[in-house]
Amino acid sequence: MIPRGIHHVGVAVVDLEQAVDTYVGLLGGTVEHQASLAVQGVEAVSVLLGSGRIELLAPTGEDTPVGRFLARRGPGMHHVAYEVGDVAEALAGLRAAGARLVDEEPRAGLFGLQVAFVHPDAVHGVLTEVVSHG
Amino acid sequence: MIPRGIHHVGVAVVDLEQAVDTYVGLLGGTVEHQASLAVQGVEAVSVLLGSGRIELLAPTGEDTPVGRFLARRGPGMHHVAYEVGDVAEALAGLRAAGARLVDEEPRAGLFGLQVAFVHPDAVHGVLTEVVSHG
Repeated sequence: MIPRGIHHVGVAVVDLEQAVDTYVGLLGGTVEHQASLAVQGVEAVSVLLGSGRIELLAPTGEDTPVGRFLARRGPGMHHVAYEVGDVAEALAGLRAAGARLVDEEPRAGLFGLQVAFVHPDAVHGVLTEVVSHG
Repeated sequence: MIPRGIHHVGVAVVDLEQAVDTYVGLLGGTVEHQASLAVQGVEAVSVLLGSGRIELLAPTGEDTPVGRFLARRGPGMHHVAYEVGDVAEALAGLRAAGARLVDEEPRAGLFGLQVAFVHPDAVHGVLTEVVSHG
């Protein structure tokens, strides 16, 4: 795949409002977007820090992907997302290389993005996302 | 503080050579720098992925910060580093805000950078680094 850069770093948090306060008030970020993705059981706020972006993720309940992550690992870094020109093309390359995928096809992510996740087993323990603008 | 962007994402790995192969061969990165920081017990390779940067960190032994991290958490995301104009100035602001710091003063990091770490307790579980060009 041909990465354009790190689109965002996803961070799992317990209290979304407190986390936004920290990233804005302490680290100097500005809120970019806020959204809920009911099907994923997650509320998210993206925060711009200069040219960088942090995606804060809070679960809507315990039995959700981010809720289970928090129960297992505690709050902290959740995934790294790379921007690519075309998620389907990137996935085809990853599949051809034998990488274990979470998503076999691109799907609608937060903030209007096309996204797909690569399994952490394929990337030395890092849950890795590829995203492109839909 | 006034972040310019995400300078890099630090990733703890067991096998540095295999990890470089993955970030270059699978994800399309290019190796930027390689270095050892004996005092920190770490060998590092920075990999550029478009405009983004991943810092792969392998411990030189078990009784090192990254070695203990791997024993406790396994391989995966280790820290997020923000680039600022002046690490000392950023630290002063963080200290004034009451943030728990790992480094009270800037120190020499990898690749000629000035760096300081902020404790994960201050940033919702994310070990956070501020860096500037020396």
